Amino acid sequence: MKNLESRGLRVQDNQLYILDQTKLPHEEDWIKVGDYLHMVNIIKELKTRGAPLIGISAGMMLALSAHRGADGAQLEMEALALRESRPTAVNLMIIIDRLLKVIRDSSFTCTKLIEEAENAFAEDVELCRKMGEHGAALINEGDNILHHCNTGGLATVGIGTALGVIETAHHQGKNIHVYVDETRPLLQGGRLTAYELDKVGVPYTIICDNMVAHLMSLGKIQKVFVGSDRIALNGDFANKIGTQGVATLAHHFKIPFYTVAPYTTIDPECEDGSGIPIEQRNPDEVRGAAGHFGKVIWSPTNANVYNPAFDITSRDIISGIVLDRGLYSRKMLQDGKLKEIFNT
Amino acid sequence: MKNLESRGLRVQDNQLYILDQTKLPHEEDWIKVGDYLHMVNIIKELKTRGAPLIGISAGMMLALSAHRGADGAQLEMEALALRESRPTAVNLMIIIDRLLKVIRDSSFTCTKLIEEAENAFAEDVELCRKMGEHGAALINEGDNILHHCNTGGLATVGIGTALGVIETAHHQGKNIHVYVDETRPLLQGGRLTAYELDKVGVPYTIICDNMVAHLMSLGKIQKVFVGSDRIALNGDFANKIGTQGVATLAHHFKIPFYTVAPYTTIDPECEDGSGIPIEQRNPDEVRGAAGHFGKVIWSPTNANVYNPAFDITSRDIISGIVLDRGLYSRKMLQDGKLKEIFNT
Repeated sequence: MKNLESRGLRVQDNQLYILDQTKLPHEEDWIKVGDYLHMVNIIKELKTRGAPLIGISAGMMLALSAHRGADGAQLEMEALALRESRPTAVNLMIIIDRLLKVIRDSSFTCTKLIEEAENAFAEDVELCRKMGEHGAALINEGDNILHHCNTGGLATVGIGTALGVIETAHHQGKNIHVYVDETRPLLQGGRLTAYELDKVGVPYTIICDNMVAHLMSLGKIQKVFVGSDRIALNGDFANKIGTQGVATLAHHFKIPFYTVAPYTTIDPECEDGSGIPIEQRNPDEVRGAAGHFGKVIWSPTNANVYNPAFDITSRDIISGIVLDRGLYSRKMLQDGKLKEIFNT
Repeated sequence: MKNLESRGLRVQDNQLYILDQTKLPHEEDWIKVGDYLHMVNIIKELKTRGAPLIGISAGMMLALSAHRGADGAQLEMEALALRESRPTAVNLMIIIDRLLKVIRDSSFTCTKLIEEAENAFAEDVELCRKMGEHGAALINEGDNILHHCNTGGLATVGIGTALGVIETAHHQGKNIHVYVDETRPLLQGGRLTAYELDKVGVPYTIICDNMVAHLMSLGKIQKVFVGSDRIALNGDFANKIGTQGVATLAHHFKIPFYTVAPYTTIDPECEDGSGIPIEQRNPDEVRGAAGHFGKVIWSPTNANVYNPAFDITSRDIISGIVLDRGLYSRKMLQDGKLKEIFNT
């Protein structure tokens, strides 16, 4: 197999390594993955995260099993176990189904399976590269950019979505600075985005989520870039909790706000934001915090908690959506241009 | 001396006890205060907090020293040490100066000093009671109220300001529910307000600061009540960081928003919000969190951080200010009615 490397995954001399994200940013622990069962546990224990990264990590494990001599029946069993390791990660199912199709084909060879996994890796890198180019065109020299959650190379195998846009602008030589909101309750901003920006060398400042309005009112933020978990056909989108608040404040203070996603994030079954269900998460996430130090609780132990995983932002208050195929402005969204992608 | 009791301070059988707020909500540790030096340390270590509570605690310690036989010279020395224990707490200076005036008066007696300290306690209770009455009149049966930071009986010796309004409405038999935002970085909401509402028996739900827009857009919040650190003559006010964001969102979603404060919070030297300086706090507060568990850091250890203690909210986006002397609506603020308090 080819040697491959991303910020959270490595294939080296036919061995898979996964970066343990639960220990970031204080420790970089690359886990040497033994077999598919080990990979299943790494996914279940959230040591790797980000829908594209999870999918491709599982696919790479399957390709390595084939390379080590597993036959079709064994590979099918391993594929099904990997597919169930994180039931809500759509990318994981899509990539495993794609590999299962190869495994179940009468012309199956080990080489074909490895090629398919390597293609998936290359495709993610290319989608991120394109989003980065289209988004970076919106960034000016000297911009201070607000970013929410983590959307970089720790969530994908490419440079990421919104953070990929920022990284691209930085590599283009634009002198930019990023305000990283910490993104409670899971702190993907304060932990992971800060770590990634350190790696890339982009100057940044961490803020608490509730400092956004203050900074915007002082004129200290020129643009906002965030990712997206699901986009409806009318341009409404779901993203990490807190996105709607940032978008509403950007709208109030007249600051351009963009979400960045590959076209695969658009759900053709979903007409508008009201069709997107919102998952409730573990109350202890809000009662305290977790990191390399373990888990702490600062609220009353049995306090009632509301903990939605994401919120819905209306396309009517954003400037546009940056897709791998280019920018869709608010006007284009309102004119139904996203639907046309699926009609042609 | 009289026995006195508030949520964070007790005088019992001529002994002062202070509730250690750094251990809340997981442990209720009442510290038996030895002498003025012990009290100075309790204030310096932030074991007690809230400007009115700090001031009255220091005053009570001084009255007890007098009761135990300290002479004028000794009391003056103790007063000056207490006055310097927390240099930015204006209430502390005001109350100590008031007691120093008694100590330095030629007709000084121990009884007069004790009376003055007990009067200060009673006055704070009465100011809170009045704000509670005026504010509770704005609350309807069934309201879901959003509250920011901690403004209750752990910050004053009465029922508090915004939280006092909520407590009053609850005691009036109104069936209300409170959304408690956790208030990063110091978590006064998730730690202290949740603890107080538990004590009072008001149903509440803790949320992260970035969930406010989501709840407002769903119609789940009917009113917002917050406190204030300083009010300018035009009605602009400074309050705990995050207030401006909540107020801006309430304005966007057309939800009534009130700040509650005693008239002593109005700064007659300050024409509008632009005159209020904003203090920057310790970056480690944003890099992690602290509580009864000690201190944890989840961000890169040397991450650049922006940590303003408070922000400024324009009177033009709020519904009004609830003072102990009644409600000042936005219209009244715009008409300059706050200034008239100082002109008469």
